[in-house]
Amino acid sequence: MIIDIHGHYTTAPKALERWRTLQIAAAGDPSRSPKVSELVISDDEIRETIEQNQLALMRERGCDLTVFSPRASFMAHHVGDFAVSSTWAAVCNELCYRVSELFPDHFVPAAMLPQSPGVAPDTCIPELVKCVEQYGAVALNLNPDPSGGQWTAPPLTDRHWYPIYEKMVEFDIPAMIHVSTSTNACFHTTGAHYINADTSAFMQLLQGDLFNDFPTLRFVIPHGGGAVPYHWGRYRGLARALDKPQLKQHLLNNVFFDTCVYHQPGIDLLTKVVPVANLLFGSEMIGAVRGIDPETGHHFDDTKRYIEAAALTPAERQQVYCGNARRVYPRLARTLERKRS
Amino acid sequence: MIIDIHGHYTTAPKALERWRTLQIAAAGDPSRSPKVSELVISDDEIRETIEQNQLALMRERGCDLTVFSPRASFMAHHVGDFAVSSTWAAVCNELCYRVSELFPDHFVPAAMLPQSPGVAPDTCIPELVKCVEQYGAVALNLNPDPSGGQWTAPPLTDRHWYPIYEKMVEFDIPAMIHVSTSTNACFHTTGAHYINADTSAFMQLLQGDLFNDFPTLRFVIPHGGGAVPYHWGRYRGLARALDKPQLKQHLLNNVFFDTCVYHQPGIDLLTKVVPVANLLFGSEMIGAVRGIDPETGHHFDDTKRYIEAAALTPAERQQVYCGNARRVYPRLARTLERKRS
Repeated sequence: MIIDIHGHYTTAPKALERWRTLQIAAAGDPSRSPKVSELVISDDEIRETIEQNQLALMRERGCDLTVFSPRASFMAHHVGDFAVSSTWAAVCNELCYRVSELFPDHFVPAAMLPQSPGVAPDTCIPELVKCVEQYGAVALNLNPDPSGGQWTAPPLTDRHWYPIYEKMVEFDIPAMIHVSTSTNACFHTTGAHYINADTSAFMQLLQGDLFNDFPTLRFVIPHGGGAVPYHWGRYRGLARALDKPQLKQHLLNNVFFDTCVYHQPGIDLLTKVVPVANLLFGSEMIGAVRGIDPETGHHFDDTKRYIEAAALTPAERQQVYCGNARRVYPRLARTLERKRS
Repeated sequence: MIIDIHGHYTTAPKALERWRTLQIAAAGDPSRSPKVSELVISDDEIRETIEQNQLALMRERGCDLTVFSPRASFMAHHVGDFAVSSTWAAVCNELCYRVSELFPDHFVPAAMLPQSPGVAPDTCIPELVKCVEQYGAVALNLNPDPSGGQWTAPPLTDRHWYPIYEKMVEFDIPAMIHVSTSTNACFHTTGAHYINADTSAFMQLLQGDLFNDFPTLRFVIPHGGGAVPYHWGRYRGLARALDKPQLKQHLLNNVFFDTCVYHQPGIDLLTKVVPVANLLFGSEMIGAVRGIDPETGHHFDDTKRYIEAAALTPAERQQVYCGNARRVYPRLARTLERKRS
């Protein structure tokens, strides 16, 4: 079985984007905000957007199941206030839930949070509880920078974030650390802000001792861990310089990387440097890089091809494809068991 | 011959740091600022700090010459106003010049600029001219974020920066894109801010068409290009998505990477993915990661060992060690010819 732990509903029906545009336009004046009831998307529309896109590619590439969350760049937590984020998160999460209900064998939801800059993270807990308890979400996406590139929130090791972590531990669910659109012209969203956030998050965790307080807390750093595996020696050296334990003891019981690295040499480095137990198959399909690589004739984001060609044993490959996902996402494992029985 | 194009005077006599501390304390009140004449550092003190540190390691490792600039994390362009940065840059540049005069066979200076947040870059030109014309600087360090992690300056492709570029073209000198200390708790200086800046700078250049305006402008992106080579497929795909030419045509006549990547798999990836013509030997010694790697028994920043072990022909290795540096730093090449004759 092959589980892709990093998929977003980037292909949602256009009505969603139109509704969001109205919501953004009304962000300063709630009386003008569109009603949730005005957003009407039929099951057939959802089926079409999934069958012709993600599911078609999953079948083509041989991926069985995707952990599916709302489109990351559209989270845009910096827009409006908590009420705006709250309504938007509810709308987006419900759509992913409907995808998982329409395609129960292929999609399992992960929750987007209604984060808002300067607002205490515990405000996100009701939405998270709903997604886990009612929608069957097996993970959440946590945005370490709800300001969208201004980086005004404290580091992930700050007690600011602890209410979320307490709920994660209670539910036994991991968080993918995933920023959204950049509002800073210095940071291209998918070419800089995403990768920088991955790198920054890892270094924040390296600097701190968060997992002393939360030994079972688990984070997935997407996009192959940003710059981290490429600079693994730098991080091993910085851990020593900061008098931290070795990375393996300090972080690797709690921090995992996906395989969203879009060329063979990158995946070869990732699988060589990071222990196999910390790698989770992901493609972020259909996402940031949608084209076909002229050098290979295949989609850049067809990451399964790179994993197939990497120097892994069959057993290690199965760990990356599904064994690790079942361990890091125990609610996903239980969902799969229920479906089988 | 082996040229290290990335060295900083991180070991300057303590008097420099004491003077800077006084200058920072007086940043709001110029009348309290220490005088430059109060900073007294003898030639013997400089000799000692170099001979026992950088030069000792260069001899041990077999490096002949270092392009030497002021300590990057101490540039701290965010501190005070332009006058503060101007005095500080002058002090630091003069010290590197003195190093190059005391050890003419081993050190050639690169200039730090007196950047200041919100101040027009053309204010930096007098210091740059002095460094090139009087001190023999063969390059400069350009900070794309003088705010120190707030990223308030426009992208490198903005006309804001053009006065610097015009002078670079006139002098035929490259700029290393190098940020300084992070004032943002989300970004550890050497573990996140440096690497993020490298990645962001590359993506800014990818998004723009700067080299249409300045076909001979040359940038060196340090720390092995941040996350870029690891995500080379992503950047190739983004160039296509943004309707830009392939990276080779679009950027690689003008953008180069150093080899400050502190483990073998990282260097192996770098040398595999990036054309050899775009790689310049660097170690950033003595810099961010000073310890010995317990996995190898050698210093993390002894990057020559990784280059020696990389899959390069002897001719390619010579390109990385010195051929490319002579081409990208023509004033360095001329300085070397003068010394030989």
